[in-house]
Amino acid sequence: MLKPFLFCVALAGSASTVFAQTPPADSVVIRSIYNEALTNDKAHDWLRYLTQQIGPRLSGSEGAKKAVAWTKQLMEQQGFDRVFLQDIMVPHWVRGAKEEAYILADKQKTVVPIAALGGSVATPAKGVQAQVVEVKGLKEVEQLGQAGIKGKIVFFNRPMDPTKINTFEAYGGAVDQRGSGATFAAKFGAVGAIVRSMTNALDDFPHTGSLRYGPGVPLIPAAAISTNGAEKLSALLKANPALTFYFKQNCESLPDAPSHNVIGEIRGSEKPDEIIVVGGHLDSWDLGQGAHDDGTGCMQSIEVLRILKALGYKPKRTIRAVMYMNEENGLRGGVGYADYAKKNNEKHIAAIESDEGGFTPRGFGIVGTDAQKAKVLTWRNLLTPYGLHEIGVGGGGADIGPLAQLGTVLFGFKPDTQRYFDYHHTAADRFEAVNKRELSLGAASMAALTYLIDQYGL
Amino acid sequence: MLKPFLFCVALAGSASTVFAQTPPADSVVIRSIYNEALTNDKAHDWLRYLTQQIGPRLSGSEGAKKAVAWTKQLMEQQGFDRVFLQDIMVPHWVRGAKEEAYILADKQKTVVPIAALGGSVATPAKGVQAQVVEVKGLKEVEQLGQAGIKGKIVFFNRPMDPTKINTFEAYGGAVDQRGSGATFAAKFGAVGAIVRSMTNALDDFPHTGSLRYGPGVPLIPAAAISTNGAEKLSALLKANPALTFYFKQNCESLPDAPSHNVIGEIRGSEKPDEIIVVGGHLDSWDLGQGAHDDGTGCMQSIEVLRILKALGYKPKRTIRAVMYMNEENGLRGGVGYADYAKKNNEKHIAAIESDEGGFTPRGFGIVGTDAQKAKVLTWRNLLTPYGLHEIGVGGGGADIGPLAQLGTVLFGFKPDTQRYFDYHHTAADRFEAVNKRELSLGAASMAALTYLIDQYGL
Repeated sequence: MLKPFLFCVALAGSASTVFAQTPPADSVVIRSIYNEALTNDKAHDWLRYLTQQIGPRLSGSEGAKKAVAWTKQLMEQQGFDRVFLQDIMVPHWVRGAKEEAYILADKQKTVVPIAALGGSVATPAKGVQAQVVEVKGLKEVEQLGQAGIKGKIVFFNRPMDPTKINTFEAYGGAVDQRGSGATFAAKFGAVGAIVRSMTNALDDFPHTGSLRYGPGVPLIPAAAISTNGAEKLSALLKANPALTFYFKQNCESLPDAPSHNVIGEIRGSEKPDEIIVVGGHLDSWDLGQGAHDDGTGCMQSIEVLRILKALGYKPKRTIRAVMYMNEENGLRGGVGYADYAKKNNEKHIAAIESDEGGFTPRGFGIVGTDAQKAKVLTWRNLLTPYGLHEIGVGGGGADIGPLAQLGTVLFGFKPDTQRYFDYHHTAADRFEAVNKRELSLGAASMAALTYLIDQYGL
Repeated sequence: MLKPFLFCVALAGSASTVFAQTPPADSVVIRSIYNEALTNDKAHDWLRYLTQQIGPRLSGSEGAKKAVAWTKQLMEQQGFDRVFLQDIMVPHWVRGAKEEAYILADKQKTVVPIAALGGSVATPAKGVQAQVVEVKGLKEVEQLGQAGIKGKIVFFNRPMDPTKINTFEAYGGAVDQRGSGATFAAKFGAVGAIVRSMTNALDDFPHTGSLRYGPGVPLIPAAAISTNGAEKLSALLKANPALTFYFKQNCESLPDAPSHNVIGEIRGSEKPDEIIVVGGHLDSWDLGQGAHDDGTGCMQSIEVLRILKALGYKPKRTIRAVMYMNEENGLRGGVGYADYAKKNNEKHIAAIESDEGGFTPRGFGIVGTDAQKAKVLTWRNLLTPYGLHEIGVGGGGADIGPLAQLGTVLFGFKPDTQRYFDYHHTAADRFEAVNKRELSLGAASMAALTYLIDQYGL
């Protein structure tokens, strides 16, 4: 059905002709959005620069600073109507020298890959060595109590459930160990916590991520161990429950640092005071290049504005790309942006976040009223030709979450995430892990949704 | 809705308990199929062996021979009810020494990567050097006629259309150049044909594949040039239309060789004479390891039978895994298998092929009557929780195509193919390009469909 249109648009050549006459049908506009994305994609080249020339961008780091300056400049070069920085203060945790760890069993030393969890304290300079108690979850720590835990290293080894088709559900079902394991263990006198990496794959990469220390408990050092390392440790423990584990890490939390959300917008022509946000987070973990998490979401968001501009589309509402700072270890950017919007009485009708990787699109999660969801579902036939079948399943995104209090409808871009946790928070999250076509299709999907919201409101 | 079932099955531990009592609901069986695939997958390890230990498997090669023997042994080890070889004769084309090619313009020599097309003749020993005429398609050759073509190398440079969401549609829209370019060019006196590789990506891999010489025209040598090479050649031609292109290739067609389809089956308990085929092709191009094309389809097909066996499922109908030989340059396996079925009066009710890569499942194409398609669509609610939204779109697969004459309903497994043509027919089609979870999900999807067909017929 779409083919005749497609052909016309393709023949017309310059996409800017699409809006030259009477308003084209939505299907024609959406087709032209995908055509523009798939033939003139810029997101992939931008991502190459962000990941390979700037690299990791943990809050407070030099990389984060460079990324702020470069992204601002990039949006200025695109000729957006306004580009500006929003000041925020962010946590400033640094890893320091590379961690060391080994298992000592029957006088055999087995080196295993670990990475300090974000926010963790260092070990003493000589490291920590202790016996290990393996548990499958937080409750088990409470059951073992002081008698089972005191003086030991607690090894949290519950894997992500591989049978969940939605990998984020599997992540959600295991990540409490990383977030709260150290606190649970410390309550009962543990001297350290080692957490199985959050991935379905068996690999040699430790998958870092944040922990939260609880009030009133000692701050014990905590690290992620690679899944292969976890399997090794578990097997050796079965053979020799008295083995010891040694680890040394050198991380520390410095005073909060000044940083920024980076914001660019195209001003609306009819309802400029109604804002539609597309965004991702600019910060990343320090081990890789922050490609899928979340360089892709940032570059896709800028690409959404570029595509609409390239098509000569004049939005009714204001469309704003927001590069949030500090999603990974504080969410200060997301919270700060919602505060800014509130303080300025800005009306945000919708926010779309891409923070599940730059993979082939599958749909959008929606957080809104039933009526709002129903309205979005009336657009379904326009979106399914592009593989967007899963509309309304699941939530939004961490950075846009705080906007919910302003009545903003939240959309989480849902790509195919079967590979996501192969890269997430590791040294493997590099530019090469991103496929150009998959990335472009995601940007086009976000642009198509942005267009429909702009046209019809919510 | 499925969650309580899921939990029960998971807790029950051994999947073989699923069929111990009264017949479970279809949703429970399908959940148990995915659980088995995602926790005990064997396809990935098998694929590692096939690709890394055996490697490329072009018809008639040593690799193909080894793959036949190993696959037979593998199915025997799985304890299938019958495992056997079907004799077929196959084309035996060999590449010989690596090709050489360069552009000679303004005394500058620019080396470009090429690969002889399968079935092509060699160049003379000293190579071919001639001026180049660039065309965007076959018709253009006819328009240029002898005056424009004679004594030249025709350079077919129409890219795959990047705006097609379905990459196979884009492939279908460009591949006539590879299949028939040499014949069209030879008709008008060309001395060689160079074809832009079939991929949306810009890369340095020539993407090989078969050509067909037409009757009564000279056999001229033809090669694929990498897309980066094609861009370079096109740019240099614009600056200097009189440049020359040199290439040398050493391929030849040997006499047909004996080979085999490899077949394993689980016998049906109620209607053993009704056969359901799951299959892929065992042969592959010679440049890579034949991972996505089509090691994945073969290993998934054996995995389907393994999964059903592991669950203790006793099929009503006979379920047969067929590893077809010679899909790439002759289809002798597919044609021979249909002949075999016809000769033996075998009733094949359905055939499922996986030959679009081992990526995340999106659905199944169906070739059958409207009533048969409608019946399959009644199963939709059982399949969409696993991401199988696209049911009935598109066709089956090359190897199973000849079964259509027996009234067999054909199903093409449809994974997400956005990355497929990054690997297809190149040195990059290696084991590392396959993601374990994505592969498992595909095998589970094929097993789920097999189960439903077995239960309810077509």
